[in-house]
Amino acid sequence: MINISTPTLLINEQIVKHNLAVMLEKARRSDVIFRPHFKTHQSEAVGEIFRSMGIDKITVSSVSMARFFAGCGWNDITIAFPFNILEMEAVNQLASQIQLNVLLESEAVARRFVSLLRFPVGVFVKIDTGYHRTGILPEETDKLDALIRMVSASGLVHFRGFLTHAGHTYHARSGDEIMRIKEKAVETLQQLKQRYKKQFPGLLLSYGDTPSCSLSHDCLGLDEIRPGNFVYYDVMQYHLGSCRLEDIAVVAACPVVAVHSRRKEVVIYGGSIHLSKEFIAADHGFQLFGYVVKLDNKGHWQSPIPGAYVAALSQEHGVVHIPESYLDRVKEGDILGVLPVHSCLTAHLISNQILV
Amino acid sequence: MINISTPTLLINEQIVKHNLAVMLEKARRSDVIFRPHFKTHQSEAVGEIFRSMGIDKITVSSVSMARFFAGCGWNDITIAFPFNILEMEAVNQLASQIQLNVLLESEAVARRFVSLLRFPVGVFVKIDTGYHRTGILPEETDKLDALIRMVSASGLVHFRGFLTHAGHTYHARSGDEIMRIKEKAVETLQQLKQRYKKQFPGLLLSYGDTPSCSLSHDCLGLDEIRPGNFVYYDVMQYHLGSCRLEDIAVVAACPVVAVHSRRKEVVIYGGSIHLSKEFIAADHGFQLFGYVVKLDNKGHWQSPIPGAYVAALSQEHGVVHIPESYLDRVKEGDILGVLPVHSCLTAHLISNQILV
Repeated sequence: MINISTPTLLINEQIVKHNLAVMLEKARRSDVIFRPHFKTHQSEAVGEIFRSMGIDKITVSSVSMARFFAGCGWNDITIAFPFNILEMEAVNQLASQIQLNVLLESEAVARRFVSLLRFPVGVFVKIDTGYHRTGILPEETDKLDALIRMVSASGLVHFRGFLTHAGHTYHARSGDEIMRIKEKAVETLQQLKQRYKKQFPGLLLSYGDTPSCSLSHDCLGLDEIRPGNFVYYDVMQYHLGSCRLEDIAVVAACPVVAVHSRRKEVVIYGGSIHLSKEFIAADHGFQLFGYVVKLDNKGHWQSPIPGAYVAALSQEHGVVHIPESYLDRVKEGDILGVLPVHSCLTAHLISNQILV
Repeated sequence: MINISTPTLLINEQIVKHNLAVMLEKARRSDVIFRPHFKTHQSEAVGEIFRSMGIDKITVSSVSMARFFAGCGWNDITIAFPFNILEMEAVNQLASQIQLNVLLESEAVARRFVSLLRFPVGVFVKIDTGYHRTGILPEETDKLDALIRMVSASGLVHFRGFLTHAGHTYHARSGDEIMRIKEKAVETLQQLKQRYKKQFPGLLLSYGDTPSCSLSHDCLGLDEIRPGNFVYYDVMQYHLGSCRLEDIAVVAACPVVAVHSRRKEVVIYGGSIHLSKEFIAADHGFQLFGYVVKLDNKGHWQSPIPGAYVAALSQEHGVVHIPESYLDRVKEGDILGVLPVHSCLTAHLISNQILV
């Protein structure tokens, strides 16, 4: 029997391995490098599952995360975040220990980076393929030329290629739209490869995002994929069509602290500091902060309780709507599981974690 | 010169002391117990500022927070969260060390609580004065009678009184509405006091929430107030009218990692894992995740940059809209300050904290 008294992340090892095997097989079939993003789980134990399945290259989203996983024995790490020049010292230190790749998109930063670099580092150039968060637009060829010229002039830099995150797939309305976004991104990256491949024959096209990596049958036209969320998935991915509900590998196990039968609500110890404030919105102000599952003695779960969902969150409280027919089966002291809306944030927030 | 390379919470000590002095004076003028909620700052150093101003009773929202502050030498703590029976052992341990008050609202929980209690504890009964998150409705007198009878029969329990959190002030549209909510809550609590004061002459009415404690000139009709957010305030409180912008005592100091002049955007290292996903919404899908300030060498700030705001967040990235006139004053490697939408969450999320 699992022993839980405060909000705890239950990680279903079997589902993790299944999700991982599916993505790994897809990468192998297309003969691309599989460099999963570890920002989703940030867990040494989950990392070991990846390692046991043959993965030796990873992606992270911060220098501190790179430092953490380097400490866990990972020695080929890409920091997929616009390089923060203020962390140059920490990056030099990491680069002295492991094969480190960083992301550049600005000539001004690149100039300072190159001048301060003391150890060999791989550099990817960030391309904006339509998400418009970060990166250089593919048509800004002058910028690209200048940046690549600057970094490749350094004897310590290995220019690795172009990297993009098609995060606008998260705003897509259908699987078809997600696939069109991906196809457009691949086409854009391929054009860049054509332009630079003579000068850099080994350059890589690195592509991330769980929705399109999940919905694609292959990774043709790419050299590397970096999905992260797929290992856990979540309610948002389910709504996007990237996964089935039974592919969601984590629940937040939360104690029931109050039952309000008249309102058909229970209050759980599990709030925005555990689940995050990420929600799915629908008409008439409806907000969904997670589906609700029953847990068995081993901390396993089946399909969500029909009609039950987390309707509101404050700092430590979650308010769960429970259908009338289920109300008499919930009492204070029980543990309910919440399938999170955004597993990356929930996993980041809940430090108590158990593999089940 | 402050030395920052990753997202850091700057806490302006002078503003903290000002906010604290104003609320403390209000409590003293009305001769009520001032038991501030420490969930907002969760900081030993900020706690010491409270202590230096004569405060010796505090509120927290979890057993773990009570344990933390008990370890910092606080010995009169109310856990203002529906008692989680699964943490009975930890509560017994705390009750053996300090004056602990817990919150009950269910007879079923109270029965188990009383049977498992081994040390003296104060009990407040949670009243729902209209927020409808937790608590017993004031008209449910049978429930109240039964619960109070059960806890007061225990030789270890000191029944302290009634506690409410009028959290619906956060949904109010005006200061007048906030004040009406408070007046209604005080009236409700007073009626309960009338009903039970013969039997429990020393019973207390304990009231929380920053909007109404900030807007009220006094605390008449109450015996204890428990505001928390007022020590830092934030953009949400500013929008509610509870504070001025210059009363906001914290900023998230975030490195600039990319400048996209064409879109009038800069990208900061500072995302939802630092600021939380809490936002203020307006028409046409507009979302505001924080105002932006310039920092001086000491980490102090003035009014927000007009027209600048955090428009989007992902896990580690923040996208900041910068007005055209200000764009040429921001470059990669700079530090921008973000006035948070919800300071409790931002302070919880950013572990790097500096008093400035």
